[in-house]
Amino acid sequence: MKGKELLELIYKRQSDRAYLATPIEDDKLHRVLEAGRLAPSACNAQPWKFIVVNDQDLKNKIADCTSSKVLGMNHFTKQAPVHIVIVEERANFTSSAGSLIKGKHFPLIDIGITAEHMCLQAAAEGLGTCMLGWFDETNVKKLLNIPKSKRVPLIITLGYPASETREKRRKEINQITSYNKY
Amino acid sequence: MKGKELLELIYKRQSDRAYLATPIEDDKLHRVLEAGRLAPSACNAQPWKFIVVNDQDLKNKIADCTSSKVLGMNHFTKQAPVHIVIVEERANFTSSAGSLIKGKHFPLIDIGITAEHMCLQAAAEGLGTCMLGWFDETNVKKLLNIPKSKRVPLIITLGYPASETREKRRKEINQITSYNKY
Repeated sequence: MKGKELLELIYKRQSDRAYLATPIEDDKLHRVLEAGRLAPSACNAQPWKFIVVNDQDLKNKIADCTSSKVLGMNHFTKQAPVHIVIVEERANFTSSAGSLIKGKHFPLIDIGITAEHMCLQAAAEGLGTCMLGWFDETNVKKLLNIPKSKRVPLIITLGYPASETREKRRKEINQITSYNKY
Repeated sequence: MKGKELLELIYKRQSDRAYLATPIEDDKLHRVLEAGRLAPSACNAQPWKFIVVNDQDLKNKIADCTSSKVLGMNHFTKQAPVHIVIVEERANFTSSAGSLIKGKHFPLIDIGITAEHMCLQAAAEGLGTCMLGWFDETNVKKLLNIPKSKRVPLIITLGYPASETREKRRKEINQITSYNKY
């Protein structure tokens, strides 16, 4: 794959906030997860687990944790047929020592990397994603039986994007940026 | 670009710890930086600045900050013709409020995302990279006139990888993983 092709993909990726009900093919979902699994991390600690929520009842309950009536946020999440919940796991000794000594929490950097691997892979598969960082973490952990001591930094919504909404948003982006070549 | 092509690129990317002295073409370096610039971030805060260090004297001084004689770490960094220093900038109001209320520092996640955009783009350009998180941050800030109050989470070494070393490492990886299809 050539450099310009990847940059074009990077340019086309966007945070999709409208999805079709179309289910996601298994092989596409597996490649998205593979892309996440193959992400680099500090000292190769891989401080993550991915929970794929594709049971529609459970997924809708997770979606309720990510939207807020009061703040008017993220009402779209129920439309996405799959949510990928990223759990932060304990890093290995060298990464943890590095985080402590250097005063930077490497697992958060690592989780950004793996999440974006999945979002880029999804874009290459014709799928849309949106990373969510604002949600009711306590309730998400209860719903998925994640121990209270663990953190859930991100949830990714995954599905086929509603193309009309996507085109509209793309036009808005083009209006506010002069970026059109690379 | 198709999904399998991206996954192949993701599989081939590795942390390169041996480089050729060959300079990097300007257009390749620009596309690497474009890929970083186009990275998504919480509330689109883009809490980063990239400092491209390609002056060889200055780059070697930065390289000295990243290697440790005592720990026997990262002696390869001087070989890389370019270092990209990622400075963490203050996020916008909504991202900062989210970090505070939800107890997760979104700029670190964002910086992982943008750093990996640059590493993947470099891989697509035939270049090698290694993300470094362990270095003498105080000295790096002095050398580059970065205000003391700012953080420098990551430095990326960039250059053409020394292919013999790369092939050797690839064989080692293949020996320890059974991963050979997607």
